[in-house]
Amino acid sequence: MNSITLDRCCIHTITTKSWSLPEAVEHYAAAGVKGISVWQNATEGIGPRHAGEIIRQAGLEIVSYVRGGFFPNVSSAGRAQAIDHNRKLLEEAAALGAPMIVLVCGASPDQSLEKSREQIREGIEAILPLAEKLNVKLAIEPLHPMYAADRSAINTLGQANDMAEFFKSDYVGVAVDVYHLWWDGDLEKEIARCGAHGNLFAYHVCDWKVNTIDLLNDRGLMGEGCIDLKKIRGWVEATGFNGFCEVEIFSNIHWAKDQHLFLNEITTAFLEKV
Amino acid sequence: MNSITLDRCCIHTITTKSWSLPEAVEHYAAAGVKGISVWQNATEGIGPRHAGEIIRQAGLEIVSYVRGGFFPNVSSAGRAQAIDHNRKLLEEAAALGAPMIVLVCGASPDQSLEKSREQIREGIEAILPLAEKLNVKLAIEPLHPMYAADRSAINTLGQANDMAEFFKSDYVGVAVDVYHLWWDGDLEKEIARCGAHGNLFAYHVCDWKVNTIDLLNDRGLMGEGCIDLKKIRGWVEATGFNGFCEVEIFSNIHWAKDQHLFLNEITTAFLEKV
Repeated sequence: MNSITLDRCCIHTITTKSWSLPEAVEHYAAAGVKGISVWQNATEGIGPRHAGEIIRQAGLEIVSYVRGGFFPNVSSAGRAQAIDHNRKLLEEAAALGAPMIVLVCGASPDQSLEKSREQIREGIEAILPLAEKLNVKLAIEPLHPMYAADRSAINTLGQANDMAEFFKSDYVGVAVDVYHLWWDGDLEKEIARCGAHGNLFAYHVCDWKVNTIDLLNDRGLMGEGCIDLKKIRGWVEATGFNGFCEVEIFSNIHWAKDQHLFLNEITTAFLEKV
Repeated sequence: MNSITLDRCCIHTITTKSWSLPEAVEHYAAAGVKGISVWQNATEGIGPRHAGEIIRQAGLEIVSYVRGGFFPNVSSAGRAQAIDHNRKLLEEAAALGAPMIVLVCGASPDQSLEKSREQIREGIEAILPLAEKLNVKLAIEPLHPMYAADRSAINTLGQANDMAEFFKSDYVGVAVDVYHLWWDGDLEKEIARCGAHGNLFAYHVCDWKVNTIDLLNDRGLMGEGCIDLKKIRGWVEATGFNGFCEVEIFSNIHWAKDQHLFLNEITTAFLEKV
């Protein structure tokens, strides 16, 4: 496995939630970080086009726009609304200059996971022509099974691979996030499959804390938990992937800290643990 | 699918945690519940042999003794200690008159899940002769992937089936718990496989609440969540299983209630939702 430098370090704006986009851009760039994944809330009041200019002027690369999806709904009106929303996100991603959007695909507790996956497929089908036209890729992110009730009916990389392969499109692939997938006994095999089909679009890192106290906002900084990050990066790079490793941490604990201190911890952990 | 009666209702003592074993036995029996699964803490101060007498005198059937396992440990002394502890549990189960113990197999965040599974296999191997001698079966319970850090390296029914089939023993099988497994796209197939190999030893029910607020103690009463319990029971019964459906709910919310009220909710939900 290759050693890693900050040239491959990307940070999701949500990770340093209290910083405005201009602050995040300034501080990430000063820290030697080279990539940024932009959450929609970070562009509020700025607009995606101007946000893109700010980012490029600072010399950062935009890795992804986060996040679309949430397609399933028991009502057809709800599904149509989700598709409209995703089209709007694609337009924003294009204005921003992001090469892809991440899809948190959604689930509805009022129907089976199979049904939700059908609706996810229909949703992607509906937005794919616009994605192609705008040259913005769609990265399906499988989510941990603890989010199967209402956040994602795609809970393993195997299911994400199935979905991506169904489309046979250069514009539909997968975002592999260690937080969601580290436990899966088939992970090595499914990463290889994902790469072999040209579907490994993105790689997200953080850590799983042994005593996780919150289902949403208690992710660990790399090294704080039990995920063997170097092993998984090895599997990812064995497919030929050499893109950004995106740091995406939702954490009430880390958000409560001085964010300069946290950014310093992130870059240190990135070099030592990823 | 068959309709269900309270003749197939078993409750885990932990579900009504504040009740002593004699209280639980008295109230379960009065409610028409026919089975009880006994947690180790419930026999403290009573002893397993006397606990068994109390239960049988009330006309309840002992379904399982809970819980053994926790085999993995980076130190060999720790692993030997776990094996000793499981042998003690088997002796207690035999004294109680329980036909099986449930294994929460364990995991160590300091080693890979593969390594932990190896140590689980070695642990089961070590206690199996005593289990056979005492006529107490071992039910491997796969746990939800959110417990993979330190509670179980067996996180799918597929992995539990692999483990049970490795032993080819009438004394090693699986406890299927909907809370841990409902999200799995392979569940129907793996339940069929489990049954076909004679390994479906136990069936546990509760529900997955859509807005779960605690990783351990926020399970739902049947009907409070999004699990399609009737569908899954249908799969279980299609294998020929017609044993108890064991109600096992860890819930700070339900524990805080009047337990008579809760027991009434359990029996009502059992008849309507399971």
